[in-house]
Amino acid sequence: MAFMQEEIRQQPAIVADLSRRREPFAVAVREARDAGVRFVLYAARGTSDNAAVYGKYLATIRAGLPAGLAIPSAATVYDAPIHFRECLVIGISQSGETPDVAEYLAHAREAGAFTIAVTNDEHSLLAREAQAVLATRVGAERAVAATKTYTSQLAALALFWATWTRDDALIEQMQERVPTAMAEALDLEPQVAEAATWLRFTERLVVAARGYNFATALETALKLKETTYIAAMPYSSADFLHGPIAMVEQGFPVLLFTLPGKTGPAMRDLEAELLRRGAELIVVEADDTAKPVGGAQAARADGAKASASGATARGGAQANAGRTQVRRAGGPARAARRRVLTVPGGLDEALTPLVAALPGQMLAYHLAVARGYDPDRPRGLSKVTRTF
Amino acid sequence: MAFMQEEIRQQPAIVADLSRRREPFAVAVREARDAGVRFVLYAARGTSDNAAVYGKYLATIRAGLPAGLAIPSAATVYDAPIHFRECLVIGISQSGETPDVAEYLAHAREAGAFTIAVTNDEHSLLAREAQAVLATRVGAERAVAATKTYTSQLAALALFWATWTRDDALIEQMQERVPTAMAEALDLEPQVAEAATWLRFTERLVVAARGYNFATALETALKLKETTYIAAMPYSSADFLHGPIAMVEQGFPVLLFTLPGKTGPAMRDLEAELLRRGAELIVVEADDTAKPVGGAQAARADGAKASASGATARGGAQANAGRTQVRRAGGPARAARRRVLTVPGGLDEALTPLVAALPGQMLAYHLAVARGYDPDRPRGLSKVTRTF
Repeated sequence: MAFMQEEIRQQPAIVADLSRRREPFAVAVREARDAGVRFVLYAARGTSDNAAVYGKYLATIRAGLPAGLAIPSAATVYDAPIHFRECLVIGISQSGETPDVAEYLAHAREAGAFTIAVTNDEHSLLAREAQAVLATRVGAERAVAATKTYTSQLAALALFWATWTRDDALIEQMQERVPTAMAEALDLEPQVAEAATWLRFTERLVVAARGYNFATALETALKLKETTYIAAMPYSSADFLHGPIAMVEQGFPVLLFTLPGKTGPAMRDLEAELLRRGAELIVVEADDTAKPVGGAQAARADGAKASASGATARGGAQANAGRTQVRRAGGPARAARRRVLTVPGGLDEALTPLVAALPGQMLAYHLAVARGYDPDRPRGLSKVTRTF
Repeated sequence: MAFMQEEIRQQPAIVADLSRRREPFAVAVREARDAGVRFVLYAARGTSDNAAVYGKYLATIRAGLPAGLAIPSAATVYDAPIHFRECLVIGISQSGETPDVAEYLAHAREAGAFTIAVTNDEHSLLAREAQAVLATRVGAERAVAATKTYTSQLAALALFWATWTRDDALIEQMQERVPTAMAEALDLEPQVAEAATWLRFTERLVVAARGYNFATALETALKLKETTYIAAMPYSSADFLHGPIAMVEQGFPVLLFTLPGKTGPAMRDLEAELLRRGAELIVVEADDTAKPVGGAQAARADGAKASASGATARGGAQANAGRTQVRRAGGPARAARRRVLTVPGGLDEALTPLVAALPGQMLAYHLAVARGYDPDRPRGLSKVTRTF
């Protein structure tokens, strides 16, 4: 078995293990609170930067703290004196050896920030620069394309912010329901492999989501670019509608993450608009994603029905690869296809990215294989990237 | 003449006019300082969001204030109570009618933020929600693809932060050198049109830059997607090297913005790596972009020579469309091409995005024309996008 495929399958157990370790999170939260933190910045690169986007949503929405992504070069290239008092700076790096992230953290700490490292290596450069360490403990990652790294970073951030807000319900879901749902989502693999065969010849793909799952769109697009070399373009649905949707013509493939929660209606609206434009859709939804209403009812009703019928055995982990013929009301007939991959639901919206990431990773793996590439060896990439 | 082309040409005069108006900037800075601002968040969508990225660099590097991009949906969809005390929230919108940006600003103000609107319409929804208004006054924008809107927003942000830091030298450059350099950059149009013909059949393109010009990469890619429907993927050079560079194979086109300043060496390193991979490059540089040294010396020397020879008449505004044959040392021979577009230099690094944006806009225009599209009418886009 390829390393990537093997590591994808390790994820439920890793998240379960991490969620049972409460002490490091309690310590980090206590110390950050003692430091009077009021503003949050994340410093990261690549996959870790996508985890940082998730962390930004958690800090803002769950903890009410204004949060952003740091500019590492502000410290490492421009050497700017930044006023970091009352800032929490969270550096994220699998190896803990990404030099500019570690340097940024050191710079921030010296200028008054409270600093936390999220890393797989408790003895790494990044860990040594930080005042608190949240170790993800995923073991050796042998595939170049990071998978278990990503979900372990999401889990660490979810646990940190759930501890910060004393959200015991969220922590309980992390310990029980999330690992189960992740394990069940792995059963989608045959359907994902079929979707990969279908997508095989495309050179372009849009990946869209909103809210917490914007991170899922970013990470899925990155994984696809690294392993399949397809031009996968990630968007928040709001920004996509604001201009780049002009790219979408008849037959343009779009991967949507429409998970249950407050962003569901916006995602359904985007889906209807894409079907009107003749896009070819793959929709990752959960078995409790709200059933569509309104405008594109015909198209949506088919999808919802297909989705509901797929949500039977094993808590809804069975995929639905139904195809729907849609006609545009009052316009020329356009054939459009909509494939649905249904992951298990029943989660707090903030935790859905941990499950939704898996079909994205499996798609990157199977699409690489379908296109004749070795997903374990992306051309010209090595494991630690040094950026200065 | 197409609206887009006309509006591209209005930009030097708009920036000159804006830079002579000191009072609104002085008022906004005084009031924000009185409010005890220590953190900065920008709220925007689309083109305005790219201007916000530029503003984030200015706030962080020039004013030393931790800064980030807001999550509008945190207020408009998730209705999160956010602690905005001592935050400056800057909303940016051409029309001032982007509903979620205006709603976010209102939410932030009520929760204790000091709020500023950067907008073309002083009587818009956004302006009414803000405590201070920086009007860009670009007149009616008739092309759907925003051009003068973007540079006027950059100018407003540069003037605001230069006033904040009492940087008279920067303001003086904004009044004199920047409009002149922008006017001269417009003379690149024939060379840009030639590059557009050359790029005509590509369906994919990477646009990379770093530092202040990361915003230029984002905005150029957005413009290309809106008008030419090419999958244009923007990257900071650091993030690009961290994974997506795997996409680049023989003949893959990459547009680089290598402007003078502290990020120059990193951009030169990326360029050398891309040439090794057989990429086809268009490099936007300034007549004072540092001459390359080190590793890929052969490839760089040719480029630098071509660049220097192009920097003659009219302060360096003449383009250099030289082609360079590069051989990879110790490996298989790979033909690579490197076209250079040289804009006028002599600017503070922080102001180079105002000039570098222009070749990007002209490329979007001419590539649309070369591909048979009407750049004034991107398919399925309207001027005000409503996202909820």
